[in-house]
Amino acid sequence: MIDLRSDTVTRPTPGMRQAIASAEVGDDVYGDDPTTRALEEEVADLLGKEAAIFTTTGVMANQLAIAVQTRHGDDVIVGEGAHIMWNEAGAGAALSGVQFAVAGQDGFLTADDVEGAIKPPAKWLPRTSLVCIENTLNRAGGRVFPQANVLAIAERIAPHGFGFHLDGARLWNASAATGISVKELAAPFHTTSVCFSKGLGAPVGSALTGPAALIQEARRLRQRWGGGMRQSGILTAAARYALAHHRTRLVEDHANARHLAELLSGPAPRAAGIFVDAHKVETNIVNVDLDVAAAPVAEAARGLGLLITATAARRLRAVTHLDVSRAQIDEAAIILRRAAEACRAGHA
Amino acid sequence: MIDLRSDTVTRPTPGMRQAIASAEVGDDVYGDDPTTRALEEEVADLLGKEAAIFTTTGVMANQLAIAVQTRHGDDVIVGEGAHIMWNEAGAGAALSGVQFAVAGQDGFLTADDVEGAIKPPAKWLPRTSLVCIENTLNRAGGRVFPQANVLAIAERIAPHGFGFHLDGARLWNASAATGISVKELAAPFHTTSVCFSKGLGAPVGSALTGPAALIQEARRLRQRWGGGMRQSGILTAAARYALAHHRTRLVEDHANARHLAELLSGPAPRAAGIFVDAHKVETNIVNVDLDVAAAPVAEAARGLGLLITATAARRLRAVTHLDVSRAQIDEAAIILRRAAEACRAGHA
Amino acid sequence: MIDLRSDTVTRPTPGMRQAIASAEVGDDVYGDDPTTRALEEEVADLLGKEAAIFTTTGVMANQLAIAVQTRHGDDVIVGEGAHIMWNEAGAGAALSGVQFAVAGQDGFLTADDVEGAIKPPAKWLPRTSLVCIENTLNRAGGRVFPQANVLAIAERIAPHGFGFHLDGARLWNASAATGISVKELAAPFHTTSVCFSKGLGAPVGSALTGPAALIQEARRLRQRWGGGMRQSGILTAAARYALAHHRTRLVEDHANARHLAELLSGPAPRAAGIFVDAHKVETNIVNVDLDVAAAPVAEAARGLGLLITATAARRLRAVTHLDVSRAQIDEAAIILRRAAEACRAGHA
Amino acid sequence: MIDLRSDTVTRPTPGMRQAIASAEVGDDVYGDDPTTRALEEEVADLLGKEAAIFTTTGVMANQLAIAVQTRHGDDVIVGEGAHIMWNEAGAGAALSGVQFAVAGQDGFLTADDVEGAIKPPAKWLPRTSLVCIENTLNRAGGRVFPQANVLAIAERIAPHGFGFHLDGARLWNASAATGISVKELAAPFHTTSVCFSKGLGAPVGSALTGPAALIQEARRLRQRWGGGMRQSGILTAAARYALAHHRTRLVEDHANARHLAELLSGPAPRAAGIFVDAHKVETNIVNVDLDVAAAPVAEAARGLGLLITATAARRLRAVTHLDVSRAQIDEAAIILRRAAEACRAGHA
Repeated sequence: MIDLRSDTVTRPTPGMRQAIASAEVGDDVYGDDPTTRALEEEVADLLGKEAAIFTTTGVMANQLAIAVQTRHGDDVIVGEGAHIMWNEAGAGAALSGVQFAVAGQDGFLTADDVEGAIKPPAKWLPRTSLVCIENTLNRAGGRVFPQANVLAIAERIAPHGFGFHLDGARLWNASAATGISVKELAAPFHTTSVCFSKGLGAPVGSALTGPAALIQEARRLRQRWGGGMRQSGILTAAARYALAHHRTRLVEDHANARHLAELLSGPAPRAAGIFVDAHKVETNIVNVDLDVAAAPVAEAARGLGLLITATAARRLRAVTHLDVSRAQIDEAAIILRRAAEACRAGHA
Repeated sequence: MIDLRSDTVTRPTPGMRQAIASAEVGDDVYGDDPTTRALEEEVADLLGKEAAIFTTTGVMANQLAIAVQTRHGDDVIVGEGAHIMWNEAGAGAALSGVQFAVAGQDGFLTADDVEGAIKPPAKWLPRTSLVCIENTLNRAGGRVFPQANVLAIAERIAPHGFGFHLDGARLWNASAATGISVKELAAPFHTTSVCFSKGLGAPVGSALTGPAALIQEARRLRQRWGGGMRQSGILTAAARYALAHHRTRLVEDHANARHLAELLSGPAPRAAGIFVDAHKVETNIVNVDLDVAAAPVAEAARGLGLLITATAARRLRAVTHLDVSRAQIDEAAIILRRAAEACRAGHA
Repeated sequence: MIDLRSDTVTRPTPGMRQAIASAEVGDDVYGDDPTTRALEEEVADLLGKEAAIFTTTGVMANQLAIAVQTRHGDDVIVGEGAHIMWNEAGAGAALSGVQFAVAGQDGFLTADDVEGAIKPPAKWLPRTSLVCIENTLNRAGGRVFPQANVLAIAERIAPHGFGFHLDGARLWNASAATGISVKELAAPFHTTSVCFSKGLGAPVGSALTGPAALIQEARRLRQRWGGGMRQSGILTAAARYALAHHRTRLVEDHANARHLAELLSGPAPRAAGIFVDAHKVETNIVNVDLDVAAAPVAEAARGLGLLITATAARRLRAVTHLDVSRAQIDEAAIILRRAAEACRAGHA
Repeated sequence: MIDLRSDTVTRPTPGMRQAIASAEVGDDVYGDDPTTRALEEEVADLLGKEAAIFTTTGVMANQLAIAVQTRHGDDVIVGEGAHIMWNEAGAGAALSGVQFAVAGQDGFLTADDVEGAIKPPAKWLPRTSLVCIENTLNRAGGRVFPQANVLAIAERIAPHGFGFHLDGARLWNASAATGISVKELAAPFHTTSVCFSKGLGAPVGSALTGPAALIQEARRLRQRWGGGMRQSGILTAAARYALAHHRTRLVEDHANARHLAELLSGPAPRAAGIFVDAHKVETNIVNVDLDVAAAPVAEAARGLGLLITATAARRLRAVTHLDVSRAQIDEAAIILRRAAEACRAGHA
């Protein structure tokens, strides 16, 4: 089975399994897990933040960022299709009581977009208190959020005293694609989340980084939400291994994604009613638009040995990762074409 | 002072004050206030619903509707600029833990808009459970929400089992403008809120109507939110008076609004950089667009004896009501023109 | 009907109705209601606090106090049977996400009781942040909370930086009974709520007083919870009248309560299985213990013309107020005796 | 270092590390992790419930049980010192908006205790909807909750339709101590949580078991709270190993605890001001009462090579587990005696 559903599906490599098996561990609720402490220090350093906290998921890292920078009833400004609003099971409202103000286009935001979404101070309006950016942009097909916009937004909102959070679930990809260090990419933000279980290939885990006081408060909330694990070194050993060994290879995933995009955007696939804008493939995600319903095509592809996700009525999303080889990409393009043609034929 | 800020500013008439002073009252927490019980029965009948509950504000009525028809983490579909999301101090998220999915244009929604906003069933997505419509549409300038759309939406969402709520803060105006009874307007909805302190001129109060079981649960929540008043007959006597005496006169407010729109949309005002689309003035609200910043114009108008609200960077909102006469409308147009010209001159 | 269920059942007097009918009003959401502003200033002055906010109920006043002095997941220390925990429909947890730590006996708390209930600082424990006292104590039969304890608690918790709230729903009674001014009684607290619709006899309303910044934040929350009324002067005129005319007469209610207690604690009632400790009747509440189930006795009394509340399996509560005369107290004692005897006979 | 702070401090054995290293894994968010699915099925079977969900912590398992069986503002009846109320960082109120009604003594509850804590149905009272029992009782020193009481409570609350949850963090110990199967112990409850990272020695994880519909809803909430891991097989492999290999050996921990209690309750320790009631040591926890402050004794013990927790002003708690040998227990008793004597000498 070729699995392009997400870069979350990767399985640990033998080296990573070895790191897990030999991890030095302790009770992290008491602060005694040396591997987890080491990971948290490494990640804080890497992102240029005072402190970091390991979390089981990116949802938890993002939602902790909201919880420690807002009050119930506040407004959080996000781009269209933001994972933190859209894909986190309503956690923003349920856990922190915040509403979202959506601005910009396709996840991209300018300083003007953000300014236009700020609520004036009135007791009957939600109180704007946080702005969240996603980099890379998941729904926009893994595109890199322009750092110039980040800097302009940071400058524009500074006088308001708002929090500024970066959902960096795929920040490693943004860095690999642009050559800008994750430290520089994260610098304008108060808090930044990163993920170890997507492109980096660890089985479980994310981290939230930021000022020590906010991370301290996040430890209390993580405990409350049920994320205060005991011997978490079993997981953080894998995350450390992933940081050490899997960051540089992300460019291979990006090359594979571009390759898939080119295979699908050539003359033949168009004949199959498949539309891919290869110029928009900047990292490891390929949005594949169809002229038929996406779900049956995904279903047909599954029957032919390819797992792929329908993310909209007529859109599929393919994600490359360390468990997909170049040869499998070639095969995936063939399967996808066949599946789309079958569905179009069924329609006709 | 001519006060066009909102139809909430009205003061009780002598007749209404008399009704208040002689109200028969009891302790409504124990269900003993005869005036409040009578009002709740009248309103339920009027709207064709099983039961009604009196609330201090439209915010409370709307938020009770959300609370009794959703669970934390759910998605509520609303139109752009919906009062229930925008103007209720973040109550949806803070009290009920819901997120909002905004669809359509200018507050208007079609069945397709609503369908496009429904989240598929997946544990990582908010669960759509309620659709809210506003009639008339406050931010769209008091325009009437088309009943055909309401019926189409009701039909489309029925198989999903979603709740369907009407924010009828100005439903009396929608009925007066269209000649359709409030009962007919409310019929497709499970719950409907109405307001006594806007066009109807009562000092305080709204009501939520709907199935008896939901209204029963709303009584518990109203108590919890601090809205369980004792001798509320003091307020509901005014609401009953307003229902009996002030509904038919709403057409005067509508005529006044249209008159103001025509005064402002003629040749002279245009010279003042004032733009009003008189065709969109369907009830008692007039959106006044400017070619200069709105706040200073509102400020200048205040100095000249007119209170009016800036609702956007270059937009003023004028609302007619029972404390504004035709003569005052004539004067308001003159003041507004003068204020706008002064601000434009200041700019030049 | 003699109504001893609660002092909330009072109906406005002719003088109060006149004050209501002639109230000067404005839109209080815009801060334009002169009567409400005057009441808020009067109450703040009376209690020696910077600011006050009018609320529809004591529940809202108390819950605002919690909301502005805690964060979700915090612990609030209260006495046994505290109204703020027990009788407010779960609002503390539902609106502010706080838990309650119950300490002391019968609502009374010493500094040691409070200290023993403070949670040590650990991320897995709720964080203590607020202590609430009730005066007079409703469940303890209207007894006055000793001011010496209040002062000792205030001193003990000061180093912790906790908030300190007084639920003063019947603070007027505590002041009337002790001769200590409400200002002195409220002085050790950051925030204090008072009620106009219990002993004072206004139809609706309470107030929260405290530091200006907290009250400012409470205005936002009141709006969010649906308590931001428009022409609230209709209600606050009654509250102002009550403050001016009904405070000094509370001693009559207290005398009536003692009278009732003495009538019921004499030899004859004992024969009827009625037990009242007249020494514990300090204000306007009388706890009446029975040797049979209380609910049937209340039911029987209703049939004989007396309304009274069963507050526990074998306990009734009688509350005196301005709508109950001395003669009615005499009659109430006779009815109660007869009802109790009937129920005991039924048992036998 | 001898670590008696908690049975959570255990480190994985070589066999368990081998199981972890070779775990078959998949993306559990998509339901693709075979090891996790197998664990969930095993646990459901073992406890005689329809379904189970793996969670990172017991906090999450317990709080999911609350969330799926209550509504905001409800009352949950618990025993004194219940972990679910006391040690879960205020999660009950913060995540589910529930209040707790504490009943009984030392964590023990009878059917009468529970009945006495049920709130009557009134809109101003919290609505009782769930009863939680803990077995074994952590704060009561690992004592077993009598199954006869469980059955009596289940029978008493059945007519009310309340939920009934068992916090079985140490249910394995209760079963080992009584010889009653966990299935029988869990049978009267709708939901039961169990833990793999206490006595069983797995690094991370708990599970909630119950009816399929509730567990299905719990999956949504786990995702929202940030507990929806990807290749969780890395953790569940350890949990499966623990279930298979570490349950029968719990009797050793119990014997060690009794041994420690006997060593400390003999004549010599009493001389040191140490009081242990060996008859109350039923499983793997020993409460050690002192006649001096507990924290300095714990500190002194640490200096001598023993980690132990102060759980109250003058109480220490020792917990035995698979990383503590009989020889270490002997040594721990000597250290503890010496530490207590040193502190008493310092006092003198």
